[in-house]
Amino acid sequence: MSLHQDVLTALEREAPGLAQTDAELIATHLTDRSGYPASGVPAAVVHPTSTAQIQAVCRAVSGAGGSIVVRGAGSGVAGGATAGEDQVVLCLEHLNAILEVSAQDLTARVQPGILNGALNQMLAQQGLWWPPDPASKDISSVGGNIATNAGGLLCAKYGVTRESVLALDVVLADGSLVRMGHNTVKGVTGYDLTALMVGSEGTLGVIAEATLKLRPARTAAEVTLSAVFDDVGAAVRAAQAVVASGLQPAIMELMDEPTIRYVVDYLGVDPTDGGGAYLLIQTDGAGASEEAHALADLLAPGARSVARAATHEQAEGMLAFRRACFPAFERAGSTLVEDIAVPRSKMAQAFARIREIEAKFGVEVPTAAHAGDGNLHPIFIIPFGDQIPQNVWDAASEIFGVALELGGTLTGEHGVGVLKKRWLGDELGGVQMALQSRVRSAFDPERVLNPGKVLD
Amino acid sequence: MSLHQDVLTALEREAPGLAQTDAELIATHLTDRSGYPASGVPAAVVHPTSTAQIQAVCRAVSGAGGSIVVRGAGSGVAGGATAGEDQVVLCLEHLNAILEVSAQDLTARVQPGILNGALNQMLAQQGLWWPPDPASKDISSVGGNIATNAGGLLCAKYGVTRESVLALDVVLADGSLVRMGHNTVKGVTGYDLTALMVGSEGTLGVIAEATLKLRPARTAAEVTLSAVFDDVGAAVRAAQAVVASGLQPAIMELMDEPTIRYVVDYLGVDPTDGGGAYLLIQTDGAGASEEAHALADLLAPGARSVARAATHEQAEGMLAFRRACFPAFERAGSTLVEDIAVPRSKMAQAFARIREIEAKFGVEVPTAAHAGDGNLHPIFIIPFGDQIPQNVWDAASEIFGVALELGGTLTGEHGVGVLKKRWLGDELGGVQMALQSRVRSAFDPERVLNPGKVLD
Ligand SMILES: Cc1cc2nc3c(=O)[nH]c(=O)nc-3n(C[C@H](O)[C@H](O)[C@H](O)COP(=O)(O)OP(=O)(O)OC[C@H]3O[C@@H](n4cnc5c(N)ncnc54)[C@H](O)[C@@H]3O)c2cc1C
Ligand SMILES: Cc1cc2nc3c(=O)[nH]c(=O)nc-3n(C[C@H](O)[C@H](O)[C@H](O)COP(=O)(O)OP(=O)(O)OC[C@H]3O[C@@H](n4cnc5c(N)ncnc54)[C@H](O)[C@@H]3O)c2cc1C
Repeated sequence: MSLHQDVLTALEREAPGLAQTDAELIATHLTDRSGYPASGVPAAVVHPTSTAQIQAVCRAVSGAGGSIVVRGAGSGVAGGATAGEDQVVLCLEHLNAILEVSAQDLTARVQPGILNGALNQMLAQQGLWWPPDPASKDISSVGGNIATNAGGLLCAKYGVTRESVLALDVVLADGSLVRMGHNTVKGVTGYDLTALMVGSEGTLGVIAEATLKLRPARTAAEVTLSAVFDDVGAAVRAAQAVVASGLQPAIMELMDEPTIRYVVDYLGVDPTDGGGAYLLIQTDGAGASEEAHALADLLAPGARSVARAATHEQAEGMLAFRRACFPAFERAGSTLVEDIAVPRSKMAQAFARIREIEAKFGVEVPTAAHAGDGNLHPIFIIPFGDQIPQNVWDAASEIFGVALELGGTLTGEHGVGVLKKRWLGDELGGVQMALQSRVRSAFDPERVLNPGKVLD
Repeated sequence: MSLHQDVLTALEREAPGLAQTDAELIATHLTDRSGYPASGVPAAVVHPTSTAQIQAVCRAVSGAGGSIVVRGAGSGVAGGATAGEDQVVLCLEHLNAILEVSAQDLTARVQPGILNGALNQMLAQQGLWWPPDPASKDISSVGGNIATNAGGLLCAKYGVTRESVLALDVVLADGSLVRMGHNTVKGVTGYDLTALMVGSEGTLGVIAEATLKLRPARTAAEVTLSAVFDDVGAAVRAAQAVVASGLQPAIMELMDEPTIRYVVDYLGVDPTDGGGAYLLIQTDGAGASEEAHALADLLAPGARSVARAATHEQAEGMLAFRRACFPAFERAGSTLVEDIAVPRSKMAQAFARIREIEAKFGVEVPTAAHAGDGNLHPIFIIPFGDQIPQNVWDAASEIFGVALELGGTLTGEHGVGVLKKRWLGDELGGVQMALQSRVRSAFDPERVLNPGKVLD
């Protein structure tokens, strides 16, 4: 009997009726937003509606010697949720209930498939907020955010997803269930397996339920600033001065000159007036206005202009200019989004090196950065329908090298998946690769979950 | 040949001259501040002065089939650094250099043995700050803080130690060296082994170097409030209202009536005027004054009195009243300090149950709480020189049960060590205990490091 058939037989025995093998349905579950294709055709897609069903699927597939790709909302850009030959896609989109919200404990217990945006809409009605805010919040799941340790505009101040997860129900590859973490905000019993699950990209276990750490909704007191600079060097210096000042903006985003050009072209207006770099800053909380004042003073000497939004509309306009980056790129072609992070003192060098790489490989690499945490998104834009050309791969590879050379990392928030796997050993080194692999074996000795992804 | 002799021979071969076997020196390295004694006599104490020496010691001892107890400053209260028969105490106190401080990146690279207080004194001169602030900061090491995931008064706002560690150099039991984590504030390459090391209590590897995440020093704008309540229930309700309000005090500490009595007796003054509970609150940052104002308004309805410090001296007085708790207890006898955490909505129940347990076992259990995070320290005071009597053990055990019953945890910040090991399975459950043990094996398959501690 083939593996394909073994897997389907085992699924039918352990989780009767759950396996979907419709070719059209399978076709919509083959890849994520990276567009990266795996080879071959998955055996089935399953949409469990309970933890017990997840357990049954894991038991069945691991028993049959098959493998599982966990899928949240498929918005990933590292190829983490791509599925191929004989695999079972365990799609969590129907497990999307909010099980409990406690305003007193500032916690929520949710199923993994709920979209970040949908959850936050519900929470907002109670004056509550789950901080992780990837730009993809309306199309990504809480489980996926946890599995990738998603970041966003606000994480310079409010932390990445790891800081907002207290406890998890995790189904291991063999179908056993582990409740890890704490319902309390502090707790040090045993190893922090919850933190280990965060960012594990579907390779350690299936997140079947999550207890999230909430915050009270941000007050309406936000103040938004924008500053235009002659060049990216001046903007980086300003961002570095902000970090060193002790002021803590909630948002600090930087756009370089090529990025500005794409956005101006897309929006049809140029609020920067031909600027060489754009810095967007937002403060919030009790001291928002005072902090914004101090920040404006700090930015002024190096900037061509600094503006403070006087109205909500003006603030929205400033934010919209940053938010338009990805739509602008995506209108222009297929995108390959990099995600390096460097120590903040090295941001200027990173931008300079990207300019050199543009020249060397004859490509354009507009780059937007979460300047508060040194996380750069260099973007490659490929004409629609084209394969990614070799010079783009070469340039991308060289950018990874620059990140490591500057003491940084391959990926600040998007994950390794399949796309960055080739370079992982360069960053982690041999001894750590082996240790990481042993940790993976402690969870999933047979490599049932996402085999071939992240590490071998 | 005996294990004792094998270990010494191997040490002499791999790390000539490092083993100290002086009985008096060994005697000062037998236990931590728990006072818990291990049985038997360690083979040696070593004081490595480089990572290479740590590697040599690990290689030697594991090769000889021996075991190692890593020791920071020995201020632990869970028995994590106690050493017994044939063990080697790897004491890091001489590895105490600050290797690098970057104001631009807000990072510091340090050796593990530096005391938290000493580090922060150096950093303060540059306007910088490493947030973890255990009450023991002047007598505990950065490595120990990391190995226990130490908390402190300020962690409700600034996070526990985990949130302030970016990267670690870790020596594994076999002597190999792993550099884990990132120099950047964000990074998602591979599993978060750094978070796994945080709180691992010397059982996974030796922290030989740490890259810390700093903050700019807190501004001088702190505002301190104190409130007196008729009883602990009213104080808890006030603390809960603060959590739910969205205001974020930097400090929120609660003392119950027995605690107040001890402190009043110790200090000889009673600022609470016979109060039944004391709440200490401090705000900081740009909005400190405004937030303090809002907090005072929030507290007033349920409090007997609310005071706002008008001068630095008044603020110090309010803080001193809280800081006097442990000196007051320690003057009265030997202390056994518990460290449970419960969801914040369950704090009133926890206090009520502690009062029941006092009555049931005929013991007094003054309890101070980090009210911002639901972390309670119930204290047992035993006459100097006495063994811990059975009714104290029974009462302590019942308090652990209460913590778990209320959805909480055995230990919020002190760790499991040997003292709480008995109860760990009750909290984690069998499947997780087995998984935790497999993770330990991924790092240290032969159980060279701290065998018998935390889990088997
Ligand atoms: C337009 C756009 C903007 C984006 N902006 C950001 C951004 O600002 N910040 C950012 O961090 N990312 C961003 N992303 C990337 C992506 O949205 C995030 O990685 C997101 O967290 C993925 O969530 P998902 O539910 O779509 O996961 P998927 O793509 O379905 O899966 C991602 C990975 O997580 C695993 N996984 C998913 N759910 C679970 C589960 N329940 N248990 C175990 N493993 C699971 C999968 O196996 C896979 O490896 C963006 C993507 C797009 C398309
Ligand atoms: C008066 C007093 C007040 C306290 N207040 C607090 C408080 O407010 N908050 C709090 O969290 N704790 C508190 N503690 C407990 C204690 O100070 C902390 O647990 C502290 O972090 C221990 O640091 P240390 O250097 O003394 O570690 P040690 O006691 O030497 O060791 C503690 C554990 O860490 C391991 N370890 C130490 N260094 C390393 C290393 N480099 N690599 C690997 N493992 C290592 C040891 O093996 C052991 O298991 C207090 C203790 C006292 C006595």
